[in-house]
Amino acid sequence: MTNQDLSNATLEAIRTTRSMRRVEPTDIPGETLKAILDAAIRAPSGSNQQTWSFIVVKDPDIKRALQEIYASVAYQYFEAAPKTVSDGSGAEVMTRVRSSARYLADNLHLAPVLIVACISGTRNFTLGASIYPAVQNMMVAARALGVGSTLTTFHISREDDVKQLLNIPADVHTAALIPLGYPTGKWGKARRRPVEEVVYLDEFGAALWASGENA
Amino acid sequence: MTNQDLSNATLEAIRTTRSMRRVEPTDIPGETLKAILDAAIRAPSGSNQQTWSFIVVKDPDIKRALQEIYASVAYQYFEAAPKTVSDGSGAEVMTRVRSSARYLADNLHLAPVLIVACISGTRNFTLGASIYPAVQNMMVAARALGVGSTLTTFHISREDDVKQLLNIPADVHTAALIPLGYPTGKWGKARRRPVEEVVYLDEFGAALWASGENA
Repeated sequence: MTNQDLSNATLEAIRTTRSMRRVEPTDIPGETLKAILDAAIRAPSGSNQQTWSFIVVKDPDIKRALQEIYASVAYQYFEAAPKTVSDGSGAEVMTRVRSSARYLADNLHLAPVLIVACISGTRNFTLGASIYPAVQNMMVAARALGVGSTLTTFHISREDDVKQLLNIPADVHTAALIPLGYPTGKWGKARRRPVEEVVYLDEFGAALWASGENA
Repeated sequence: MTNQDLSNATLEAIRTTRSMRRVEPTDIPGETLKAILDAAIRAPSGSNQQTWSFIVVKDPDIKRALQEIYASVAYQYFEAAPKTVSDGSGAEVMTRVRSSARYLADNLHLAPVLIVACISGTRNFTLGASIYPAVQNMMVAARALGVGSTLTTFHISREDDVKQLLNIPADVHTAALIPLGYPTGKWGKARRRPVEEVVYLDEFGAALWASGENA
């Protein structure tokens, strides 16, 4: 593989990793799942302490219990959700996203695999630097293998219930709940604010690139 | 590009993205830097709010000021650092890592580019889910383009000084400081605990894969 091939393929996989909330019930082969989780543990963690763990949930009753917890929080959120997002998406896009989010809340347990990503340590903002990079590696690797995913955190509002359900020790925190499955939709770029709007040079607010300029 | 090529290349890039603390002073072309940051913004964020920003620091005086802040925290940490890590690395590995970490503290400003990744919102554990995935995308994309990086957070202990230096508003938090540059070392897998040790099935502590088993 040439360097050019490596960079083209990797950037393509990253660019087209979008949230896949509708997935087939088809199971994920063991070696595919292992490749996805092997990608997770290649991420960095604070002082390389790797206090992470990943619970693969396949038991139908446990998946259903997780879905009930997830949906109870998600539906509270839907009532209060913002009607627009900062990339300027209009009502049509928001309606589609909300529909997809409701679908997920109702059908989370139908994904063949749910991953609960965990981390131990002092539960503060910086601790996220030791688990969310692993979660992102997992999702990009999944996409590269044709498997859809979406990063969710709603369950954290009822984390005590989740920890009881999965026998998670008191000093271990859940960071994300990620359903995995073969997607019904197509891979493609998600809607984002342009890079020119969010990249600054040497100080906050000073644009590095003019809007629409290419490099 | 076939699906097989896409997955092979992406998994290879993820597996070989290790912390590169020693980099050449050679500048990074604008289009390469833009591709790296374009990868960052493809990551998910809570409710797709994208309240992130990325400050590209190239000014030598500002880089030097960041290095002084970084080193002041890093050296305090080195005094108190654990002598082993949980993957069982022995004294030899730890000596090499510590040497590399000290090199970075002393030479952070010599990297051609420092990125300060920022996020606004309630500064808690879950907020990390809206910025550290973007940071990881950035580092994997950089590796795919031949650019080395390392995720650091030491500066957060003196975040007020960093915010003053870079004119960062009060409601914006810095999540990571990432030096970028062409590495002097080779790409390769970093040392990690085996995936079998950290992946469980249906409940915490129940191994999914036996140690050494292949998928």
